[in-house]
Amino acid sequence: MPQIRIVLVETSHPGNIGAAARAMKNMGLYELALVAPKCFPHHEATARAAGADDVLAQARCHASLAEAVADCQLVIGTSARQRTIQWPLLTPRQCAEKVTAEPPGHRVALVFGRERSGLTNEELDLCQFGLHIPCNPDYSSLNLAAAVQVVAYELFLAGKAMPSEGREARLATHAELESFYLHLAQALNDIGFLHSSKQAPSIMRRLRRLFGRARLEKREVDMLRGILSCAQRQAHKEAE
Amino acid sequence: MPQIRIVLVETSHPGNIGAAARAMKNMGLYELALVAPKCFPHHEATARAAGADDVLAQARCHASLAEAVADCQLVIGTSARQRTIQWPLLTPRQCAEKVTAEPPGHRVALVFGRERSGLTNEELDLCQFGLHIPCNPDYSSLNLAAAVQVVAYELFLAGKAMPSEGREARLATHAELESFYLHLAQALNDIGFLHSSKQAPSIMRRLRRLFGRARLEKREVDMLRGILSCAQRQAHKEAE
Repeated sequence: MPQIRIVLVETSHPGNIGAAARAMKNMGLYELALVAPKCFPHHEATARAAGADDVLAQARCHASLAEAVADCQLVIGTSARQRTIQWPLLTPRQCAEKVTAEPPGHRVALVFGRERSGLTNEELDLCQFGLHIPCNPDYSSLNLAAAVQVVAYELFLAGKAMPSEGREARLATHAELESFYLHLAQALNDIGFLHSSKQAPSIMRRLRRLFGRARLEKREVDMLRGILSCAQRQAHKEAE
Repeated sequence: MPQIRIVLVETSHPGNIGAAARAMKNMGLYELALVAPKCFPHHEATARAAGADDVLAQARCHASLAEAVADCQLVIGTSARQRTIQWPLLTPRQCAEKVTAEPPGHRVALVFGRERSGLTNEELDLCQFGLHIPCNPDYSSLNLAAAVQVVAYELFLAGKAMPSEGREARLATHAELESFYLHLAQALNDIGFLHSSKQAPSIMRRLRRLFGRARLEKREVDMLRGILSCAQRQAHKEAE
């Protein structure tokens, strides 16, 4: 199995952090990352964690989602809502298949948003895939820890059922991909593609989707960045 | 789909009842039965139910598990522990397949035990099948509402995926089966099979398992009871 990290973003209720830790340990997951939690550590978190207080004790806090997933090769974000741009949405079962197919050395982040509002579009942009838990369309807001429980349950089943298999080449980490996207935006701007366009964020979002689905290898990123650099050099030459 | 009832037995923490109601409604389940809950109604139950307070408001309280499942054709009880006698244990996915294969008119009860100690052996005797959620062997105690969430999630998926199909003949209700088991025990006693045996409870338990797996039809129960009556008449004749 790859190394699986559960990331909770700006959780309001410490009880939910504890209950999520319990749900994780029940399914054999131990790595918890918290992005700007409102109250942590907190006695309610400890109480609801029950015997999973070791998971809480090892939890790492981060200032931003980007920081929490910087070293991950695969980042999957939960999403309750349908969005305008069609996101590649996985079910928990498909997500578990994808995760267990990762090579053992890889780090995978499963990201869960705020209790009320979930993840922002900007945070979902940091994810290669979206994850949606099928549920009653008339009442679709799962409790945070309940959502973690369902996803962790599918991961546990998949981990028992499937041998892991993956690509030979090392996939790019999240930080490498973010540098690439930054480079891409600069290059597109340099060559005048994004220049006067209000649509820049939307275009970058579509490109992220595209590359996100492709699961770029490190050497592919290097190659693409080489291409971008060439394009930039050409643009700067003309401007001179 | 058959009519699905979630039954919670002697729940200690009202918050868990509320969280279970929310988990149910998220997955399109609305029928909740409570057997001797410690505190209900309770403000913590209402708070944790969030938008599922309608499920709480409709919940029915019962004095015993037998009463709560009397009108059900299929009763499935969750079990965390391995027991001496091998119970026919289902995974949540197998359970969902079995439940969705029931005819539309049938009533199905899914029974969840106490937070600390689960269901007693006597309560499991009232169930035709056991249900075990696969989990980390080193930390296997799921929160009650988390367990309801996993089972309800599998039911929701199965309900969307599978057309229901069932037998033509009406299956026996729980109450009809209990009358049969009582008759059976009396008959076995009458014919001297259970007479001087300390093993009577264990023997009855094995017989329950056997008939439970068979899913008796009403007309089969009538037939079996006809046989028992004959055996009893013979026994009484010899005794005279």
